[in-house]
Parts: sequence; structure tokens; C-alpha cells
Amino acid sequence: MMTRLLGVLGGMGPLASAHFMTRLTLLTEASQDQDHVPAILWSDPRIPDRSAALRGDGPDPLPALMRGVDGLRQAGCGAIVMPCNTAHAWHQAMAERAGVPFLHIADATADALRKVAPPPCVVGVMGTAATLAMRLYQDRLSAQGWEVITPDEAEMARLVTPAIASVKANRVAEAFAPLAEAANLLGQRGARAVVLGCTEIPLGIQAGPQDQLHVPLVDTIDALACAARDWARQAG
Amino acid sequence: MMTRLLGVLGGMGPLASAHFMTRLTLLTEASQDQDHVPAILWSDPRIPDRSAALRGDGPDPLPALMRGVDGLRQAGCGAIVMPCNTAHAWHQAMAERAGVPFLHIADATADALRKVAPPPCVVGVMGTAATLAMRLYQDRLSAQGWEVITPDEAEMARLVTPAIASVKANRVAEAFAPLAEAANLLGQRGARAVVLGCTEIPLGIQAGPQDQLHVPLVDTIDALACAARDWARQAG
Repeated sequence: MMTRLLGVLGGMGPLASAHFMTRLTLLTEASQDQDHVPAILWSDPRIPDRSAALRGDGPDPLPALMRGVDGLRQAGCGAIVMPCNTAHAWHQAMAERAGVPFLHIADATADALRKVAPPPCVVGVMGTAATLAMRLYQDRLSAQGWEVITPDEAEMARLVTPAIASVKANRVAEAFAPLAEAANLLGQRGARAVVLGCTEIPLGIQAGPQDQLHVPLVDTIDALACAARDWARQAG
Repeated sequence: MMTRLLGVLGGMGPLASAHFMTRLTLLTEASQDQDHVPAILWSDPRIPDRSAALRGDGPDPLPALMRGVDGLRQAGCGAIVMPCNTAHAWHQAMAERAGVPFLHIADATADALRKVAPPPCVVGVMGTAATLAMRLYQDRLSAQGWEVITPDEAEMARLVTPAIASVKANRVAEAFAPLAEAANLLGQRGARAVVLGCTEIPLGIQAGPQDQLHVPLVDTIDALACAARDWARQAG
């Protein structure tokens, strides 16, 4: 039985954090309830909009994020994860406050990537324009030996950005063809694998014929769930 | 923006509580993250097996359940729900400890039932043999004016029990026909609606042609999510 208690800072959005809890459960080998990861999900959808704040166009979410960190610590959590790409812009300050491991989604992704495309090699990263501009994945993956490429501006405008909007509007099947094209274009430019650094992209890319995808894909929410599970499994 | 913080005592099993968080989100009208219910999910799969304890065949889960209640209260939750039918055997002791509203899954079900089959009338309840033996739904629904009928022993043995086992074994589609037959038999015996008092039954019954169901169904996890959402919406 696992003795470590995982903290999940969520609510950004609440559907993504519920999905994370589902994936954490499904990715844990278990034959009974008692084999699963003990976890507390702090789902606070009131946290101010992260994208608006990054654009300088809304209140700072950091105080609300810090309240979540404090709440998870007070509940006895021994590590924290945050299934939201954009909120990782505040990761460093939160990790310092936490005083326990705060697993970074890009480091979890690197661990998953190492299994399918070990460095040194070229990998692709897809995400919203905001996530790519933050260099959330590029900097951490480059530091660990990968050469990172991303869709160019024309591909973002023609393929990725409209496909993400389709998924958000529940037109999931429409998103498959443009996302598959964008991933395959990264493959043609040399990517040995492509990171799906956004919660909407995996939903779109699962909604079509998988044999049209010519490059291995890494889902960052699954990567974070695996890293959390592996932390929980260690004795402690 | 909602100011009330909901506590969710889960992990029994962890997939059911992740599903509850998903349904809570989808059943809340929202146009942005900030419109959703702030909630803390205390997912503790280490809680000893409830069915085994009820059979007198395993450790008492109450101390672990009480730790969850205390943790949710310390985190500031103003009400508690528990998306697990069997654990409601310990509801009264937990509600006394909580000192805040602890919404009962059968009362939430009564609220949902009132909309489709207001009392006095006959309603059916399907569930595991253990849940039916606990009279979890029968007593509370009878007290509120419904006459409650359940599948007879032969129907449990031939239809409901094997169908629940099929769902647990991931053979979801196979469960549809027997569950639909059991629900329709309750309808033929006069039930104006049928309560699906088990987390597996709704999964099986959604996996087939819905026009073969001749009686309205009430999903208890959805009913609990609606009751939780309605509590959170009140000013507080």
C-alpha cells in the first residue's frame, strides 16, 4: 500500500484536473482500490485567468496559487503536481513555497520522451501560441540535450490554432486532420517524437485514424500522471 | 463567482471519484473556469474495503473515513459529499463528526426523482445485492412517500449481478441487455422511474440503444453532483 500522499493543484480548468485524476488512476497498475495513489485534488477554478495575466490583462494568479500550495501542504501532501501548462509560468515561486518536490510538467515530459526518443536528437513541441511563447518546453528540453522545433507561424495560423479552437468548441473530429498534418510536418523536419503540450491537442489527435500519424506522440498530462505515480510508489 | 468550498470524500474507488469530479464540472453551467464549483477531492484509496467490513470480514473503515472528514473540514470545506454508495453505511457517524452539511446520496437521489416521478408513486431501485441489503435507498425513499420495489432474487442472480460483474471486467457492452431487461421488468411491475444505485450500472446501461429502455432512469452519481452544485451556488 502506498504511504505517500500526492497533492494535485487543479481547477485550471476543472475538467482538465478531473481528467488528470482519471488518467492517474488508469495508469496505475492495481487490482483493488488500496493499490492506487492517495491524492488530494485542490480544484480551485476561482484562480484568476493565467493567460490574461501573462498578457498583462488581468489580476495576478500567484496569491491564489500559493493558497493552493499551502492547503496541500497543510493536508500532508509530500509532493505537488499541477495539470495545467500555462500555470507553470509561476512554477518556480510555487516550488520554493512548497518545500516539497513540485514536479514540473516539462521534466515529466522529458522522462516520457527519453523512452521514445532519447537525446541527443530533434523533437517537436506543439501547443498554444502562448505556451510556445513562454518556452515552457523548449528551455527544459534543450537543457537536457534535445534540439526542439515547433510549428512555424504559418502552420500555427493554418493548422494548430484553429484545431485547438475546434476542440474547445466540441468539434473534436474536425481537429484531427490539421493536428495530424502539423505533427507529421514536424516529423518531416526531423522530429523523432512530438510533444503535445496542451490539454486540447490530445483530444483532437485521438479522434481520427492513428495510422495517419507518422511520428510518436507524447501526451504531457499522461507524462505528469506517470511521474506522480512513480513518486508515490517510492517508499517514504 | 462561487464562494463556497465543497469537500468530496473519495478514492472508493478512485475512478468513481474522478468521474464524479468530471460530472460535477459538466453539470455546472459555465462559460469560464471561474464559474465552476471550488472543490477539494480527498481521494484516499487506502480506506479499508467497505463491503468486506459490512460482511464482518475486514477492518473497520470508519477511522480512515473520519480522517477524510477532518481533513476536508481543516481545508475549509463547508459541505461534504461521498460518491460511493456502500460507504454511506457509515454516513450518520461521519455527518455528526463533520459539523457541516454532509449531503446523503439517497436524499440527492430523492431530489432528482421528485422531478421525474413525484411521490406518492412506485419507483424501482437497482444496485448490488449489498446495497439493496443495506436498504440505503429503500428506507429514505419510503420515508419521503415513495413505494420502493427492487429486482427479485431470480432477477438479481440472472441479470443484475452478472451485468455488474461484466462492467467491472471491462465488458461494458455485454451489460446493456440484462440491465435494460431488469429496469424494464421494474417498469412492468409499476415503477414510474428506476434509480441506478451503483456506479457500474449507469456505465452498462449507457452502452446500448436507449430506445429499448421503457422507464426513466435516475443516475445517483449525477444526482449527487447536482445536489453538490446546488449547495455551492447558494450564497454563503
